[in-house]
Amino acid sequence: MAEPFDAVDVIRTKRDGGALTTAQIDWVLDAYVRDAVAEEQMAALAMAILLRGLSREELAAWTTAMIASGERMDFSGLSRPTVDKHSTGGVGDKITLPLAPLVATFDVAVPQLSGRGLGHTGGTLDKLEAIPGWRAALTNDEMLAQLDDVGAVICQAGSGLAPADRRLYALRDVTGTVESIPLIASSIMSKKIAEGTGALVLDVKVGSGAFMKDLDDARELARTMVALGTDAGVTTTALLTDMSTPLGLTAGNALEVRESVEVLAGGGPADVVELTLALAREMLDAAGRPDADPAAALADGRAMDTWRRMIAAQGGDPDAPLPSARHSEDVLAPADGVLVTLDAYAVGVAAWRLGAGRARREDPVQAGAGVELHAKPGALVRAGERLLTLHTDTPERFARAHEALEAAVTIAPEGARPAGGGVVLERVDAA
Amino acid sequence: MAEPFDAVDVIRTKRDGGALTTAQIDWVLDAYVRDAVAEEQMAALAMAILLRGLSREELAAWTTAMIASGERMDFSGLSRPTVDKHSTGGVGDKITLPLAPLVATFDVAVPQLSGRGLGHTGGTLDKLEAIPGWRAALTNDEMLAQLDDVGAVICQAGSGLAPADRRLYALRDVTGTVESIPLIASSIMSKKIAEGTGALVLDVKVGSGAFMKDLDDARELARTMVALGTDAGVTTTALLTDMSTPLGLTAGNALEVRESVEVLAGGGPADVVELTLALAREMLDAAGRPDADPAAALADGRAMDTWRRMIAAQGGDPDAPLPSARHSEDVLAPADGVLVTLDAYAVGVAAWRLGAGRARREDPVQAGAGVELHAKPGALVRAGERLLTLHTDTPERFARAHEALEAAVTIAPEGARPAGGGVVLERVDAA
Repeated sequence: MAEPFDAVDVIRTKRDGGALTTAQIDWVLDAYVRDAVAEEQMAALAMAILLRGLSREELAAWTTAMIASGERMDFSGLSRPTVDKHSTGGVGDKITLPLAPLVATFDVAVPQLSGRGLGHTGGTLDKLEAIPGWRAALTNDEMLAQLDDVGAVICQAGSGLAPADRRLYALRDVTGTVESIPLIASSIMSKKIAEGTGALVLDVKVGSGAFMKDLDDARELARTMVALGTDAGVTTTALLTDMSTPLGLTAGNALEVRESVEVLAGGGPADVVELTLALAREMLDAAGRPDADPAAALADGRAMDTWRRMIAAQGGDPDAPLPSARHSEDVLAPADGVLVTLDAYAVGVAAWRLGAGRARREDPVQAGAGVELHAKPGALVRAGERLLTLHTDTPERFARAHEALEAAVTIAPEGARPAGGGVVLERVDAA
Repeated sequence: MAEPFDAVDVIRTKRDGGALTTAQIDWVLDAYVRDAVAEEQMAALAMAILLRGLSREELAAWTTAMIASGERMDFSGLSRPTVDKHSTGGVGDKITLPLAPLVATFDVAVPQLSGRGLGHTGGTLDKLEAIPGWRAALTNDEMLAQLDDVGAVICQAGSGLAPADRRLYALRDVTGTVESIPLIASSIMSKKIAEGTGALVLDVKVGSGAFMKDLDDARELARTMVALGTDAGVTTTALLTDMSTPLGLTAGNALEVRESVEVLAGGGPADVVELTLALAREMLDAAGRPDADPAAALADGRAMDTWRRMIAAQGGDPDAPLPSARHSEDVLAPADGVLVTLDAYAVGVAAWRLGAGRARREDPVQAGAGVELHAKPGALVRAGERLLTLHTDTPERFARAHEALEAAVTIAPEGARPAGGGVVLERVDAA
């Protein structure tokens, strides 16, 4: 059958700075999925989009076409309002673990369709798989039943949502076309809109450990995604949050589960608690629960109760001991003074090299591997004191982890103050 | 074996406006040929190059790497100096046919490694194959022997010259990355430099029937190629020549051979004679024959004699009748007046649709098909007079040829003058 458009014409239009029509966008993504547009043609188009941009209209059409490439889910049969959270990924970002059960405690359905880690940021599913018995793969019916019963579910995203995105993302990854704000925004939002959530809160990370190193870029990405969600009828807001230093005191799968359970028990590191509560308030507002008090639900054990039911519903044993790594080594403070920086990216790479993450999709991860922090920026430290503990099952990995951490730590004379303040930097909404 | 570079890093460097090192360029083209860089990665890089450009240093390195991908020929054993001509392609451009034997008449070796036509411009080999018995494929030894004996050879370019270019060109063709001056220049010059000619004259066409529609772009391409040739030690000059109207009075394979033989017999259309002589003088100068008189060699039959020997050496019968098409139709002048435009692109498309050209590399061509012109811009015409005759073996093709010609002709009231003057617009040299 003859194609209504020619791929070369579409590529040339964008290459020369023109606008693509909705019909061209619908066609090119559909044709890509059915192999009528070749990988090399989509690669050239992605590069042209990266360098020429997409208008708001083109971006909305692009996202709609990605959604149309697959199935849409429907949560409208649930008795509760649904609200989802998406983070652009960071080091030590275990927030989904305490957040989903916390918000669900207030009679809100929280479907968290998650992924595995690749590179220096961990994956939510990898973390939960450290819990003996827990399984990530649910059928749609199992997911809906759990949302009705427990309210919270964290599970593997089905391959049916926006399949064009999965394929396009793999292509962008090898062709130097990842760093395009419209392509990043449509990749995230196509899956979230297809998932059928009523409201969405975005956690857009900024800093060395995040995809966006720069506040202006992060703000533009947040605004682009909020606009896309709003145009699609999803109540969408975003928080820009700091990722110059790891979140909390752990980076690694079982280590982060342990820290999440501490937060659910009413304790845990201040920054993790701050961000969990800030995102919970956004989500509860969006879900029509403005009077909910999430801090109280952490303090009084209600959130912990939801967590235990959520883990058990997916076969996990919330009381089983978590795996720990067989070997550990410390990183000591090189001088007396104030810890000024503890670089998130370096810690992420170290945790990855220790076995907590994977370099290729098919690699296994170690449940117990990772990095434990004994101090955060702002702390006074003494030379020779433990700053970090590295954990792995495979001690030959220590050397490259230490290497990654070589320039990660800055210590200034006593009296110096590290830059920055709280975790939440800015809020972006549709207004 | 580990690769010294990462394709994504190379792509990102060019994408972000940086300069590639010679080592990166050598690696990426070599890795592309051995499939360690994928088609989609080269497509993204080509788009980044198209939009970001290449510096003179990067372009020289790129061209050198393309040459290094294949074999180099060596004409240094010949007793005569070698000089080659390359045209960027136009409608009715049969100049190679009279030019090569004309220049060879003056004890110069003229190796014309040529191609077949694709799209609206004809291919030199397709034209010569209209001569009964003539064969395009020669071994290197046959080619060298013919250069020593006759002086002129027009044959198929071996697949051993710059194989990276052949593969890259096929990729650019489907990814909207053809229209990049550095990539066009390196594609042409890598083959010409690998061929080992001592001197090169470029015929860069400008106008509707040419690849370059615009004089500024054509001038930039010419300067880029002259610089590349000069840097590689090849004496290189270029003429910018008009391609707003077809060259001569024919477009089509056997039709153009017939017209070329008319020029070699001392006749032929003025514009074909003008361009043949202008290019011959450039080539003879470059070959150290500044006193040669090519007009005399056309007038006195010496060039015709070389032509007959050149055709016979490749199995062709210079006396055999040329094939003609089985069907013809005329296009008549719609009004009285001065023929102001006769659009080269439209005539090229018409000839192509009549069967003189091919849409895909594997298509056959018709030897007799094409368009004959009975008037050129500047001529006075009368309504109902024949302007064009269309020839084909397959009369169902007439309708689409007429369609292509619908807007090709402009006639103005008597007294009007068409734009333009001679065929040669400008000369570009290394100075």
